[in-house]
Amino acid sequence: VPGHDFERRGWVQRQLAASILLQSHTLSDRNMASLPIPPPACLLKPYAVPYRYMLGPGPSNVPPRILAAGAQSMLGHMHAETLEIMSHITSGIQYAFQTQNEVTLAVSGPGHAAMECALFNSLEPGESVLIAVNGIWGERAAEIAERIGAKVNTIVQAAGGYFTNQEIEQALVKYKPVLLFLCHGESSTGVLHPLDGIGDLCHKHNCLFLVDSVAALGGTPVYMDKQGIDILYTGSQKVLNAPPGTAPISFSERACQKAFNRKSKPVSYFLDLSWLANYWGCDGKAMRIYHHTGPVTGFFTLREALCILAETGLENSWKRHKEVAEYFHKGLEDMGLKLFVSEKKARLPTVTTIVSPPGYDWKEITAYIMKNHHIEISGGLGPSVGMVLRVGLMGCNSSKPNVDMVLAALADALKHCHKSRV
Amino acid sequence: VPGHDFERRGWVQRQLAASILLQSHTLSDRNMASLPIPPPACLLKPYAVPYRYMLGPGPSNVPPRILAAGAQSMLGHMHAETLEIMSHITSGIQYAFQTQNEVTLAVSGPGHAAMECALFNSLEPGESVLIAVNGIWGERAAEIAERIGAKVNTIVQAAGGYFTNQEIEQALVKYKPVLLFLCHGESSTGVLHPLDGIGDLCHKHNCLFLVDSVAALGGTPVYMDKQGIDILYTGSQKVLNAPPGTAPISFSERACQKAFNRKSKPVSYFLDLSWLANYWGCDGKAMRIYHHTGPVTGFFTLREALCILAETGLENSWKRHKEVAEYFHKGLEDMGLKLFVSEKKARLPTVTTIVSPPGYDWKEITAYIMKNHHIEISGGLGPSVGMVLRVGLMGCNSSKPNVDMVLAALADALKHCHKSRV
Repeated sequence: VPGHDFERRGWVQRQLAASILLQSHTLSDRNMASLPIPPPACLLKPYAVPYRYMLGPGPSNVPPRILAAGAQSMLGHMHAETLEIMSHITSGIQYAFQTQNEVTLAVSGPGHAAMECALFNSLEPGESVLIAVNGIWGERAAEIAERIGAKVNTIVQAAGGYFTNQEIEQALVKYKPVLLFLCHGESSTGVLHPLDGIGDLCHKHNCLFLVDSVAALGGTPVYMDKQGIDILYTGSQKVLNAPPGTAPISFSERACQKAFNRKSKPVSYFLDLSWLANYWGCDGKAMRIYHHTGPVTGFFTLREALCILAETGLENSWKRHKEVAEYFHKGLEDMGLKLFVSEKKARLPTVTTIVSPPGYDWKEITAYIMKNHHIEISGGLGPSVGMVLRVGLMGCNSSKPNVDMVLAALADALKHCHKSRV
Repeated sequence: VPGHDFERRGWVQRQLAASILLQSHTLSDRNMASLPIPPPACLLKPYAVPYRYMLGPGPSNVPPRILAAGAQSMLGHMHAETLEIMSHITSGIQYAFQTQNEVTLAVSGPGHAAMECALFNSLEPGESVLIAVNGIWGERAAEIAERIGAKVNTIVQAAGGYFTNQEIEQALVKYKPVLLFLCHGESSTGVLHPLDGIGDLCHKHNCLFLVDSVAALGGTPVYMDKQGIDILYTGSQKVLNAPPGTAPISFSERACQKAFNRKSKPVSYFLDLSWLANYWGCDGKAMRIYHHTGPVTGFFTLREALCILAETGLENSWKRHKEVAEYFHKGLEDMGLKLFVSEKKARLPTVTTIVSPPGYDWKEITAYIMKNHHIEISGGLGPSVGMVLRVGLMGCNSSKPNVDMVLAALADALKHCHKSRV
């Protein structure tokens, strides 16, 4: 029951805030006279974080049990318990991704770090890469691949569009890439990209298949092994409902073959897969060597998030996201709003794009809803800026009561922000 | 009072654990039959993290108010409140670093990400860099600089040593580097490197001065501006006592001049200073553009950690770390143990290296102390492996009761592990 859940959140919040206020901000005797830079006044008083309904494209709300998991006491980054938790995370990602890949781990950073980890390890300077660009994530992948000296080729679709398998195969033939980048859930445009058959095409043309599923994973089916995906990554802060700062990623044997037999070292030591695979115990070696200090409490939260997914069941999660999204889309259309993605099957169930209502300033709408309803919804991003409003219903936020709440907020905003700047 | 503090920790732990157990691990009706990879059993039961006294080289224990700050509810990475918290963090780092640098922020990753951020932005391919190597951190900086195609020159000191200003100037003259890397607190060997005068030498020879103070910052004086340091970074999980996953960093105007007028883009988009400076509102531009999703709750914890430092006062913190370290060192010598760094003024007050006692296996000692006393101390790292035991007393862990506790544990271990493998 979401209402129940929100009450619990409030309870945990109050307990924690009380604990903070109780213990903090008692100044000890100080002797600062000789320091050129004095302690800043803004740090000498507590800051209470307000509660927001996080119904934008992410981060999403974090359920209290995940917050609590992250507030457990610190362990060493290589303590036996931490390594055990990391192995649970590997198992959880294998389940979430539907893969048996051994090299399955979480990058110690946000989704962008995972994107760089994927591209840095699988591409060498001068190699041809094909990037499917139908929104901001393809643009960013191209930018990253260019920086490391790959030969970047793109196929481009306007915001809201996606690629047919035929278009993809033509480009594979034309550019002979060693890697294809495709975004599964294009959160800037609200497009869910079909995945079936593309892995086979890639392998037929001797190419690795890299999929960004940051905004889709857990909310809609993906079968890494069955769909022939060679590298797949997501973020912790979307459907998984963990705080941002860890990013699950997995590499197929084919991808590992390439990554572990490079001529040049990857540009980043921090994101070097050979080191990461050892840290995560995925390289078959008995001895773990210190690489970097992982975000230990981030691992606690990611484990808990994967627990919730395992308890819920992937298929139930996919089903719920689909039903809630359809319920939301109908509600929007009943209000006279227009969905940005016209084709039903191409609509991302996690992030919905709504055509920015004519006669309104989208910024007024999002600001009004934040101010009066404490709900985050957002405008467009990259190629969709100014064109859309975006609403995310991910993980615990994917519920019909949340839909009703955001529809009511939208209706209220449309009543109050009408043509105010026209 | 440390005892009081530990009690509080226990209280918070119990509250949170109860909250977790209450809410978690109720399986919903599942229908997994058709999924090739079933939900892993290890995720279908709770995992209670044990309490450890984190007296190794880091991460250190996290005080309850920092844990509580991190368990506050999620905000967007660009919400007004998040941006305000980030500006507080900038002020706090300026205080901790004793700098007025505008470009002062936290990298969304561990210390290694900050090291890469520093080197990626300040070096271009083919440029000469000088790395002072007297432990693992110089080795790693050299490794990173090599990967991005810089011309790497090193000066090397054996584990336990450091460099005179004369040696540094000779190398500056010889190699004409654009950047000098120096580690302030060499946690692998327990050496505190002197910093005075080196900035001036660098600038005289047209070179930027980059300092790694991951293990020292907050525990011993550093004056970024006064000492002419151009790039300085630290980690969140050492003296600051926040969880790992954010890394404070600051760039002088001289460093920014070089970073913002490069011919080539840095290899990493995620760590590109132009983007980071905009995200952190340090570039003077009114408009913030989405770059990546920062670790929002990591920012909550880092802010709280900097609050504690501001309340305590830097000078009090430096003084306490020095006194506690000296008390510890005397206790070790009274027990007949030998300090690895013979010169008193070169001893790092945050991480102490003890000569591995002859006739003992260091691994048995650390394992015994973990098993019987729940205290983490560690062996050597990189060039000091097998040579030392390392004990960290950082931030809230820098206290005389902790010293007494770890001395008692060491005495107990020396009684029980004696020559067991000889």
